[in-house]
Amino acid sequence: MAGLPSAIVFDVFGTVVDWRGSLIAELSAFGAARGIAADWAGLVDEWRGAYRPSMDRVRKGELPWTRLDDLHRASLDRLVAAFGITGLTEADLRHINRGWHRLAPWPDAVPGLTRLKRRFIIGPLSNGNVSLLTNMGKHAGLPWDLVFGSDLFGHFKPDPETYLGVCRLLDLAPGQVMLAAAHNSDLAAARGLGLMTAFFPRPTEYGPRQVADFTAAAGWDVVAADLEDLARQLGV
Amino acid sequence: MAGLPSAIVFDVFGTVVDWRGSLIAELSAFGAARGIAADWAGLVDEWRGAYRPSMDRVRKGELPWTRLDDLHRASLDRLVAAFGITGLTEADLRHINRGWHRLAPWPDAVPGLTRLKRRFIIGPLSNGNVSLLTNMGKHAGLPWDLVFGSDLFGHFKPDPETYLGVCRLLDLAPGQVMLAAAHNSDLAAARGLGLMTAFFPRPTEYGPRQVADFTAAAGWDVVAADLEDLARQLGV
Repeated sequence: MAGLPSAIVFDVFGTVVDWRGSLIAELSAFGAARGIAADWAGLVDEWRGAYRPSMDRVRKGELPWTRLDDLHRASLDRLVAAFGITGLTEADLRHINRGWHRLAPWPDAVPGLTRLKRRFIIGPLSNGNVSLLTNMGKHAGLPWDLVFGSDLFGHFKPDPETYLGVCRLLDLAPGQVMLAAAHNSDLAAARGLGLMTAFFPRPTEYGPRQVADFTAAAGWDVVAADLEDLARQLGV
Repeated sequence: MAGLPSAIVFDVFGTVVDWRGSLIAELSAFGAARGIAADWAGLVDEWRGAYRPSMDRVRKGELPWTRLDDLHRASLDRLVAAFGITGLTEADLRHINRGWHRLAPWPDAVPGLTRLKRRFIIGPLSNGNVSLLTNMGKHAGLPWDLVFGSDLFGHFKPDPETYLGVCRLLDLAPGQVMLAAAHNSDLAAARGLGLMTAFFPRPTEYGPRQVADFTAAAGWDVVAADLEDLARQLGV
């Protein structure tokens, strides 16, 4: 590693927060309280399965710019019907969709970010919209300095406008900015644009369906065990 | 006041940080250390005097979008010549211009914002650029949840795109967002768009040249003594 970065931006879904465990727990409790039996875990997995294809429709120009909240909602409506779930009101659907604003952090996330914030500018760089990420930060106690949502750029990762947009807004060269992520493909896109890179695995992110990202797929600038280990390796 | 806001955004220069006292202290120390005698206080006052006219050239379309850092630098170059200051290198000028990133908070700012952060989303809404505001936040210990700089909108206050841009990014109605400022004109623009408003005076902001904003000029939703009093009035 040539030197320390000035800023570190973080992938969020899977890297900082446990979307799968959070949503399954919340929806199971919701279903039990409302007497609605459903394969909630299956719905969550398919909901996440719709994530990349829905963003790719925007990235390819098949859809105009659409916030992730709205892509999530369209996928949810389709899946609720596909899973034969009935009895949900519009308010219920809005509440369920906002579950992405209430995801819980991995246990090392808040202590690790708190340490990193002492020396570095820290913020999410996520495909989530600013409001989703801001509400999540408040809910989970993530000590961000600022928030980079995809709606600032009108682009989803891995479009270059996202990574380079962070550099432009922070008035930093790509080599002064590090992306930290549990996903090798995100890091590859960032490295291709000159950013520094840090990887740590989240081997339970996808539960039993996880097939990738158990280990670093390239010689990233830092390979860590988790966010606290990343802080340690960066000297804070 | 109809109810509590979900988010509070803050004017920064003068409202949260003491730009005049900070810059005069820093430049006087710089001049003494480098043996450069100059009317540093006069330069600071004229530098700030150039602020509004320089932004108005952008707002009227006479200049393309220009970050405040770059407007500040153009004004500084002109004033250094006008004040007959010699012996400054390019690195010196860059350092002096970045003084706007190193402004000190008023004494009530950090404790007041820390209290407000417990219940509300808080962020600056400033004519400064994101990098300026982020660096200032780190330097001064301002506990922002996120940062709204004018470069996110390509507009300076009081253009509506700034206030409404905050509402759009936070996915809140104007009536759910409060602007807090020590400047009545800023609040009038926000109120005109439906935002809630909070005023507290900064009677020494402009030093002996201050002529306005000693008191609330309208019935703002909250009129406070300072940021700690604002927190108290909002129940945190």
